[in-house]
Amino acid sequence: MHTEIDSLLIFLKEIDRLKSVERQCLIHNGGRHENSAEHSWHLALAALLFQGQAAKGIDINKAIKMALLHDIVEIDAGDTFIYADQAGKKEKELAAFQRLMSLLPSAQAIELTKIWEEFEEGQSQEAQYVQALDRFLPLYSNYLNEGYSWKKHGIQKAQVIAKNKPPMIAALPALWEKAQAMVDGWFKT
Amino acid sequence: MHTEIDSLLIFLKEIDRLKSVERQCLIHNGGRHENSAEHSWHLALAALLFQGQAAKGIDINKAIKMALLHDIVEIDAGDTFIYADQAGKKEKELAAFQRLMSLLPSAQAIELTKIWEEFEEGQSQEAQYVQALDRFLPLYSNYLNEGYSWKKHGIQKAQVIAKNKPPMIAALPALWEKAQAMVDGWFKT
Repeated sequence: MHTEIDSLLIFLKEIDRLKSVERQCLIHNGGRHENSAEHSWHLALAALLFQGQAAKGIDINKAIKMALLHDIVEIDAGDTFIYADQAGKKEKELAAFQRLMSLLPSAQAIELTKIWEEFEEGQSQEAQYVQALDRFLPLYSNYLNEGYSWKKHGIQKAQVIAKNKPPMIAALPALWEKAQAMVDGWFKT
Repeated sequence: MHTEIDSLLIFLKEIDRLKSVERQCLIHNGGRHENSAEHSWHLALAALLFQGQAAKGIDINKAIKMALLHDIVEIDAGDTFIYADQAGKKEKELAAFQRLMSLLPSAQAIELTKIWEEFEEGQSQEAQYVQALDRFLPLYSNYLNEGYSWKKHGIQKAQVIAKNKPPMIAALPALWEKAQAMVDGWFKT
């Protein structure tokens, strides 16, 4: 019979695979594509750092946990480029999440499911805050890397604005101003 | 004049460099060396997952923040192999931390300094819990990868026990039992 620790060790090994899921954007120095595990670390720290810009009363600890968990489904479902067709994404990610949770002891599965579902529903201020930061990071990476994934996939300025402005302006309006200036600057060149 | 957001953007770019700091151990599938950013993500999730094994009353949110921050000094100081000479490590890491904090607005610098110093001092139960998990993860990676970094550097069983048993048995005794069995099993082969 598996003890709690046995199950946790299996889960730790399973989620290690997120280090091999490649994203569309580059690390800031442009040397290689970013992976989803290191991105999740960057996002969790961003959630800690931008708390002064967030809505009053936000639970920053919950936001950090959302950031840590938000991409683990990509272990099965892969990373979906935000400008690509999103058909079937929700279903694949839900199946992945359920498989991963089935590996965990029930207390941990319950806690993680609550956090991930709240993030996915996108209704709480914590979910909206983390989603806004999650939009910003690849935009920032593109800004620092000559529009790398935009250029590669022929993404137009209007698409970048349409995908990023609504979530960002709602949760982090001052950061959106910076992001808008980055987008304006890059697409002018 | 820099706004709060300008400073945070500079800091986000600076810590992105942690994605390029290579550790001695491999990712679990053995495909390449792990980097310190994705390791920090793995450690933060481990801190969330093993809370039921931790001392009663532990502040798991603080532990997660420690995990996210614990290696950012390696941006300047590099990763030091735990079985290598540790001379000068503390001083280099402190200088790195101070440089990084000088990039931040003061509210964030104060919060992060408090968390990192408590981790480094190693006196609180949160610091000891995260340090124990931080010892376990590379041990687990070696177990899963035929003793990769132990073999490469000629590390003996007694050294592995001496470095890992004291912090692990104090904070996570049941996990240490598993770790001890992994070490026993590997060094017998």
